[in-house]
Amino acid sequence: MPEPQAPLPELLDFLGQFITEHKRQKIAAVLRWRTRYVTFLLEDIYQPQNASATLRTADAFGVQDVYIAENWNAYKVNPDVTLGAHKWLDLHRFRRGDAGEDDAALDAQHNPPADYPATAEALATLRRRGYLLVATSPHSDAWSLDDVPLTQPLAFLFGNEREGLSPYALAHADAHLRLPMFGFAESFNISVSVAITLSHIIHALHQADVPWRLSPEEQAALTLRWYRRVLGTHHQALERAFFRRLTE
Amino acid sequence: MPEPQAPLPELLDFLGQFITEHKRQKIAAVLRWRTRYVTFLLEDIYQPQNASATLRTADAFGVQDVYIAENWNAYKVNPDVTLGAHKWLDLHRFRRGDAGEDDAALDAQHNPPADYPATAEALATLRRRGYLLVATSPHSDAWSLDDVPLTQPLAFLFGNEREGLSPYALAHADAHLRLPMFGFAESFNISVSVAITLSHIIHALHQADVPWRLSPEEQAALTLRWYRRVLGTHHQALERAFFRRLTE
Repeated sequence: MPEPQAPLPELLDFLGQFITEHKRQKIAAVLRWRTRYVTFLLEDIYQPQNASATLRTADAFGVQDVYIAENWNAYKVNPDVTLGAHKWLDLHRFRRGDAGEDDAALDAQHNPPADYPATAEALATLRRRGYLLVATSPHSDAWSLDDVPLTQPLAFLFGNEREGLSPYALAHADAHLRLPMFGFAESFNISVSVAITLSHIIHALHQADVPWRLSPEEQAALTLRWYRRVLGTHHQALERAFFRRLTE
Repeated sequence: MPEPQAPLPELLDFLGQFITEHKRQKIAAVLRWRTRYVTFLLEDIYQPQNASATLRTADAFGVQDVYIAENWNAYKVNPDVTLGAHKWLDLHRFRRGDAGEDDAALDAQHNPPADYPATAEALATLRRRGYLLVATSPHSDAWSLDDVPLTQPLAFLFGNEREGLSPYALAHADAHLRLPMFGFAESFNISVSVAITLSHIIHALHQADVPWRLSPEEQAALTLRWYRRVLGTHHQALERAFFRRLTE
């Protein structure tokens, strides 16, 4: 169903009558903390439970957009990734082939691709949308979490459980971030990396004087989507009734 | 093999000859950040990958001790939990039955026990060792991460993936901690909760004027254990040679 051009506040009031007070308050409360100022990209994640834990973390920290790059066409993250938290998030998925690539030649599974068309497309999109691209990596000269400036929208790039970020992502990032590691382990679990990063950055963002909140228009558009979610298939009949009444 | 009473520095020098420079430096570097000032308890964790990710996180943040309470005797976390990171950590495990309980009557699997002998024993131990017991919970009047005082050693209590902490743990904690949650999700993945908590607390601890580092004696004892790990079964013959030389 297309986004309605016109009287969104009235439509929201109308639909809101069919949603419990508790649910409406929850949606309003969540919206106040929602942000697109910070986002992240997951590159070629293997384990569905990692992707799923990561989306739950994004939702919990108010991060509305998650970017997913799948260069390895043969590995389908698809069905599992979208479980649960997806309902309340925007997943932006970039797959090999989406940009008109021929993926038939890919023998995937355990051979990483020589190029990274999905990552390239995702990074280009993020850059076009004004994000500073920050690759998490073990580089010794990388930023620490305290070094990350909050003056520009931030997109954090996380690699997969085995190889980390692709050479492409590492080479095309604007900056590198090294998570604190004081032990023998060489890396964190991917969902742990995302949690540490978002926890620190969102905590700082809430205290920073930058425009991290969604605009009123974005908030209204999200409210409509979430109301539709809550109403399920009923929302279509209700919206028809609303617009019929408008034109009477 | 018992801890040697006597000349530990000399024994360490001796064993160190058989360990690469790189490994010795790594061990020394890790020791500088190791702490027993902060620890945590995992209560009845179901999923081995969560326990495993959690131990990796503990190691990475320099937390040497992890307490594990298993009230549900029928669910064996045992073999999986100890993988990997355990080598470098102290796991303190409390099981139903360890304290002389009769566990034959337990029908476990999906019936939570009415009492929590393993948790009770673990909490008593932590308290005896001087820790403030901080239960993570969704209580609305709980501390936030910024509220946690660093003036006393801290033991954070984490519940399992389904029910959270037991009523026993919640009732017997000294304080409650609520992790930041700004979205629809009601809880974090357990390994994510541990990561968020340790990341914040360890970051604060490193800047605090409290005695969080291991004592020289603790550092020497840990060095010996880690050297033995690195040397594998060779260490026994080497130590015999060392002590033989001492008495000659």
